[in-house]
Amino acid sequence: MSDSTPQAPIVLREDTDGVAILSFNRPDRNNSWSVPMELEYYRLLRECADDPAVRVIVVTGAGRSFCPGMDTSALADQVADPTLTTEPHKRAPITTPRSIRKPIIAAINGACAGIGLIAAMNCDIRFLSSKAKVTCAFSQRGIMAEHGLAFTLPREIGTSRALDLLFSSRIVMGQEALDLGLVDRVYEPEELMPRTLEYARGLAANSSPVAMGVIKQQVYEALETTHEEARTMAIRWWYDTLRNHHDFKEGVTSYLEKRPPAFAPWDPATSTVPAPLPED
Amino acid sequence: MSDSTPQAPIVLREDTDGVAILSFNRPDRNNSWSVPMELEYYRLLRECADDPAVRVIVVTGAGRSFCPGMDTSALADQVADPTLTTEPHKRAPITTPRSIRKPIIAAINGACAGIGLIAAMNCDIRFLSSKAKVTCAFSQRGIMAEHGLAFTLPREIGTSRALDLLFSSRIVMGQEALDLGLVDRVYEPEELMPRTLEYARGLAANSSPVAMGVIKQQVYEALETTHEEARTMAIRWWYDTLRNHHDFKEGVTSYLEKRPPAFAPWDPATSTVPAPLPED
Amino acid sequence: MSDSTPQAPIVLREDTDGVAILSFNRPDRNNSWSVPMELEYYRLLRECADDPAVRVIVVTGAGRSFCPGMDTSALADQVADPTLTTEPHKRAPITTPRSIRKPIIAAINGACAGIGLIAAMNCDIRFLSSKAKVTCAFSQRGIMAEHGLAFTLPREIGTSRALDLLFSSRIVMGQEALDLGLVDRVYEPEELMPRTLEYARGLAANSSPVAMGVIKQQVYEALETTHEEARTMAIRWWYDTLRNHHDFKEGVTSYLEKRPPAFAPWDPATSTVPAPLPED
Repeated sequence: MSDSTPQAPIVLREDTDGVAILSFNRPDRNNSWSVPMELEYYRLLRECADDPAVRVIVVTGAGRSFCPGMDTSALADQVADPTLTTEPHKRAPITTPRSIRKPIIAAINGACAGIGLIAAMNCDIRFLSSKAKVTCAFSQRGIMAEHGLAFTLPREIGTSRALDLLFSSRIVMGQEALDLGLVDRVYEPEELMPRTLEYARGLAANSSPVAMGVIKQQVYEALETTHEEARTMAIRWWYDTLRNHHDFKEGVTSYLEKRPPAFAPWDPATSTVPAPLPED
Repeated sequence: MSDSTPQAPIVLREDTDGVAILSFNRPDRNNSWSVPMELEYYRLLRECADDPAVRVIVVTGAGRSFCPGMDTSALADQVADPTLTTEPHKRAPITTPRSIRKPIIAAINGACAGIGLIAAMNCDIRFLSSKAKVTCAFSQRGIMAEHGLAFTLPREIGTSRALDLLFSSRIVMGQEALDLGLVDRVYEPEELMPRTLEYARGLAANSSPVAMGVIKQQVYEALETTHEEARTMAIRWWYDTLRNHHDFKEGVTSYLEKRPPAFAPWDPATSTVPAPLPED
Repeated sequence: MSDSTPQAPIVLREDTDGVAILSFNRPDRNNSWSVPMELEYYRLLRECADDPAVRVIVVTGAGRSFCPGMDTSALADQVADPTLTTEPHKRAPITTPRSIRKPIIAAINGACAGIGLIAAMNCDIRFLSSKAKVTCAFSQRGIMAEHGLAFTLPREIGTSRALDLLFSSRIVMGQEALDLGLVDRVYEPEELMPRTLEYARGLAANSSPVAMGVIKQQVYEALETTHEEARTMAIRWWYDTLRNHHDFKEGVTSYLEKRPPAFAPWDPATSTVPAPLPED
C-alpha cells in the first residue's frame, strides 16, 4: 500500500485563493478508506482550521474515485479474523469535519460508497460529478448503517428515501441524487472542480468567516435542540461575538457603499459557547 | 420614516371571506423591518387570532417588496454605535406566528431577505412570486443565522441545502425555491395574490378551524418530541377536544351527505394542553 | 360487513420468493379501516416477523382501493353517540409496522386517506399507482392529525408541505406526491405490483436480513437521538451483532468473489439493545 510512501502523501493539500483542496490519494487502492488516510485527513482538516489563509475547504479524490468505501483488504482481514478490527470506538469520530468551523464542500468526482459516502455526508455541502456512482453498500456487505449515517441521511433526504437507499444499496447518480436531496449540485465531470472552486472562492471572497463558522455550529447544534433554544443561541451569538465584530461593521458598510467586503480571517479563538443573554 | 404617520398604517389589515390579509407597509423603506412594524404585525396577528370572523391569515408586502430585511438605517446606527441595539432578547419572539392557532400563509410578492426571510419561515406555508428574490443575506453582513433560522431552514429543505443558502447568501428564485422546498407554490406576479386568496378561502370554507388550530400546534410540537409522544398527544386531543366537538359531527355528516361543511369559528378558549388519556 | 366471513380473510397473505404480500381485503367497504382489520394486519405482521421464509413485506389493498380511511359507518356511529369510540388509547399503536424488523413496502394501489395514509406512512417505503388519490382528510372531518402523523409527515416532506397537506386535505397524486417526497416511486397501475415485487425480491435476494433489520431500528431510533448517540449505537451494533455474523463474512466474501450473496434468514432472537461499547 502507498500509505507509507513519503513521496506520495495519502491526502494531498493544495491551496488557492483562500480555498484548501484536500484530495484522498491512494491511487493503487482507488482511494479506499484506511485508518492512516483517515488520520491524515483529520490532521489536515485541523491544520486548515487553524490556518488564517484558509476560509473554505474542498474535499475530493485524486484520480477517478472519490472514495469507494473501506479498503477491501482490511475487510477481508476482518472476515478471516474477527479480532482484527479497525476499532471504530477508539478512532476520532467520522463527524470530525462537522466540528471544523469552516465550510467544507465535498466534490464527489467518482465512486462514493460505504464509509466514503459517510465522509461525504459529514461535509457541509456536496457537489457531484454526473458520472459518479453513489451507494450506501452496507446492506449488501451484511453491515448496519455505520457511523451515524442513520442520523444524517434522513435529515437530508427524508426517512423513507433513506431507508430505500440503505435497504437496497442501489446506485444513485446525477439528477436523481439531486432530486433526492443527497447532493446540492450535479456537474459534468470536467466542470465539477472548476464549478466547485468558483463556489468556494465566492464564499472565501464574499462571506464572513466568523459568520460562516458560527452558522455552521448553529445549524448542526439546532438539529438537536428546540426552536426556542436555537433562537436564544442566535441572540447569544449576536451579543457575544457578532455585534462588536469587525465583520458586522464591514458587512453593513460594504453593503451600503456597494463595494466588495473585506472580511477578517477566522479567529480560531472564537468562543464555542457564547455568553448567556444580557440580564437587563 | 412613516412609522408614526397615522394615515398610513405600518401594517395594513384587509378582510375577505374569512381571510385577513396583513401587508407590511413601509413604502418609503421597501417594507424593511423595524421594531414598530414588528410590534404592529404581532398585534394584528393576535387581533386576528381572537377574531371569530378570521379563519385564515395571509401575510404579504404592500408594493413591490415583501420585506428585504432589517432597515439599513437601523443597521448603520448599530455599526456607528454598538450600544444601539434592537434588543432582540427583549422583543417578542419571531416565532410569534407559530403560536397563532390559525393558518398563516406568506404571499412573498417581492424581495425577501434576512429577517424578512425569517418572518416568512415562521409563517406556516409560503407562496412565491416568480419574480421575487429570496436570500438569507446574513453571511454577507457578518451576522450569524438570526432568530432560529438555523432550526427552521434544515427542517424545510435539509441540512446541506440550508448550509448552502446560509454560507453563500445566494439569491434563490422561482422553480429552484420550489424544488428546494423553501416555498410551496410559485406563481406569476399577477397570479400570486389571486391564487393565494383562492387557497386561503378554500381553507376558510372547507377546513375545520378547530382541526386546523390543533393540527398547527401538533406539527410544531412534534418537531421537538418523539413519535410516541406525538401519537399520544393526538389521542389526547381526540378525547379532550375533537370527539365531542361540533366540527367532528359536521365534518362527518356533511361528508356523508355530500354537501359543503359549515364549521364553527375557532374558539380562542380552546385548550392548549389537552387532558391526559382516559384512565380506563 | 365481511369482517366475520371466514372464507374471505379480512387481510390476505400471499408469499413469493421471500416476500409476503399482505392485502387489506374488505371489498364491500373499499378496504376502509376497521378495528378487526387492524388486529388482523398487526397479527400478520408479527407472523411474518417470526417467519424465517419472509425477508420483505409488501402491504397493499385488494381491489381498487388501498385504504380510504376509517369506515364511515364507524364514524357515523361515533357521531350519533360520542361514547362509542374505537378507543385508540387501548389499541396496539399504528406504529406497529415500525417495530417489525423487516422492510415493509406500501404498494398504494388506490385511494389512500386518513388512517389509510397513516398506515402507509408507518410502512418504510411507499410505491404509488399513478391513478391513486392521496389525502390527509382530517381537517375536512373536524379531526386533528391522528396517531402521530404530525411527527412522520414533516420528517418526510418538510414542515410547510406537511401543513399544506394537513390544513387543506387537498388530493395529491403521482408526480406531485413523488416531488413532495410523500412517496418513493410512481408507476402506472398495471406496473405497480410487478415493480414493487421486483424491488422486494431484490431486497430478499441481495440485502442481508440482519443488516436490514438493524438498519431499520437505527433509522427510526436516530429520528429521536443526537448524532453522537446514533454514531455510538452503530459501533455498538458492530461489536455486538454484525462483526461475528455470518452475513458480514458472506457479504464481503461474495463481493470479493463477484457472486450473489447467500444471506441467513432473520433471527427473531436478534438483540434489540446491543451491548455497550468495549471497555478497552
